[in-house]
Amino acid sequence: MQQHSILTVGSMAFDSIQTPAGRAEQVLGGSVNYFSVAASFFSPVQIVAVVGEDFPQTHLSWLESRKIDTRGVQKAPGKTFHWVGQYDQNLNEAKTLSTFLNVFEHFNPTLSDQQKKADYVFLGNIDPVLQQRVLEQNTSHKLVACDSMNFWISGKLEELKKTLKMIDILSINEGEAYLLSGQKNIVKAAQSIREMGPSVLIIKRGEFGAALFTDHGTFLAPAYPTATVVDPTGAGDSFAGAFFGHLAARGLNRATAKSDPKTWDHELRQALLAGCVMASFTVEDFSLHRIMRLERAEFDVRLKSLREMIKA
Amino acid sequence: MQQHSILTVGSMAFDSIQTPAGRAEQVLGGSVNYFSVAASFFSPVQIVAVVGEDFPQTHLSWLESRKIDTRGVQKAPGKTFHWVGQYDQNLNEAKTLSTFLNVFEHFNPTLSDQQKKADYVFLGNIDPVLQQRVLEQNTSHKLVACDSMNFWISGKLEELKKTLKMIDILSINEGEAYLLSGQKNIVKAAQSIREMGPSVLIIKRGEFGAALFTDHGTFLAPAYPTATVVDPTGAGDSFAGAFFGHLAARGLNRATAKSDPKTWDHELRQALLAGCVMASFTVEDFSLHRIMRLERAEFDVRLKSLREMIKA
Repeated sequence: MQQHSILTVGSMAFDSIQTPAGRAEQVLGGSVNYFSVAASFFSPVQIVAVVGEDFPQTHLSWLESRKIDTRGVQKAPGKTFHWVGQYDQNLNEAKTLSTFLNVFEHFNPTLSDQQKKADYVFLGNIDPVLQQRVLEQNTSHKLVACDSMNFWISGKLEELKKTLKMIDILSINEGEAYLLSGQKNIVKAAQSIREMGPSVLIIKRGEFGAALFTDHGTFLAPAYPTATVVDPTGAGDSFAGAFFGHLAARGLNRATAKSDPKTWDHELRQALLAGCVMASFTVEDFSLHRIMRLERAEFDVRLKSLREMIKA
Repeated sequence: MQQHSILTVGSMAFDSIQTPAGRAEQVLGGSVNYFSVAASFFSPVQIVAVVGEDFPQTHLSWLESRKIDTRGVQKAPGKTFHWVGQYDQNLNEAKTLSTFLNVFEHFNPTLSDQQKKADYVFLGNIDPVLQQRVLEQNTSHKLVACDSMNFWISGKLEELKKTLKMIDILSINEGEAYLLSGQKNIVKAAQSIREMGPSVLIIKRGEFGAALFTDHGTFLAPAYPTATVVDPTGAGDSFAGAFFGHLAARGLNRATAKSDPKTWDHELRQALLAGCVMASFTVEDFSLHRIMRLERAEFDVRLKSLREMIKA
């Protein structure tokens, strides 16, 4: 088994998307897809997900070529999850036109022995009951991060709160943070959410970047200002992939937070910047197109540039 | 004459404001008021403005006690400019309910001999024709910054473009930047606006901070995340006051930009942070209340804290 492998669970999907820049029909999407491609720049990844019979084997093969272990991608009879969405001028907010859950509706993540031993676990945005089920199977985790969304905050709040008690890091967007906390101010929202469990909270702010809240304080990272914004879909998931990949690659986890809080805080900040840079590539094209052709050298140049943009 | 005195021209007003936090009737407002109180933490200020017979002498006396020279505040027959506005949940956007220009309608800035010699000039958000008239009278300026708004961008674009050719620094908000440039992306908008004249461009982003664009590159400063947001009115003006005051206090100007571009860029970044911190105090209460009772030590603590929040 490779050291510091990330186990991630979430959705694989087809997306049909309209943005001010154009339209894409039935393109590859899903949180786990964006997450794992982004994370694979840093660390090996194992996916647990479900697809339908219509999902292209070529894509799974491509993921394998990136050292993303797709053996946990179940193929179920029926069609792959399909999301139809739209962005208006406000690119920070997706409008869902339709959701066809298809095979995703009966998704029940079951971990292999290898997956049970993964030490980094990222719970994508799925039913909090399933998120708990993953953590119950994986007993060796050293660091657990989690995403969620309005749908679960409104519909399964008590279950989500149980999940929050089991994780180290929560990554959600600003609107979700307000909904979850009942606060309308980022400082108050962060305090309230951290009291629910996660010692590290990331609030994603779309084109305005991301905010990190820890015991050590607050870090505010801007988005990298790219001149080309085609499709924001997957920005948050690829952000999370780079963020979590950065930590896993360095073997940083909740033990580090205790033994060396200064390094932990410093590296969380570096991870946040990596996330912002990855997201800035994601939005430059539809689907996974931009990050699938992304070179590490391009990423490094932009990361250096973002560092210059925040240097006071 | 004191060294590096800032001459500023703009509106003094009464504001009636409703926000989610409450309501304030006929309180002190106006861009020049916010600007000069903020700038006076750093540098002496001279105001050119007009008020009606209803404007309280006590307030002018208070400004004088802060070493703000109010001899250029004309008292005209009639009433002071009165703005009635409202903020909904989106505190980044003011909705104007009514505007009573009153004595401001016939404002014609005429500079005294001393004002003609001021070396730092900040042109508040007034008719671009009047902005030009100020610069024609002041021939000794070493640094000129300017604010504007949708009303002039839409209504007097050609005159505004003339003003832009005469200034060093433009400070506008993000929506205005898109309107002025015809672009919908901050990178493209900044490039387009800098080609119109100002070598330094500041794009204010409300609760998301401010972006600085210069020959040297881009600096992205977050807003200081305050837990108390009562009234955003004047945030942009007090931001500009602290920003410009920082530069004036250090004698930094367009000559510095040429002779020592590295210091210039560095100090612009420090000035931007000072602006963000000042704005964060302004929004904590209605009117000028918070910055009128602000202590320099409080400001310094928060500035230090903001620096920690952007340190990678």
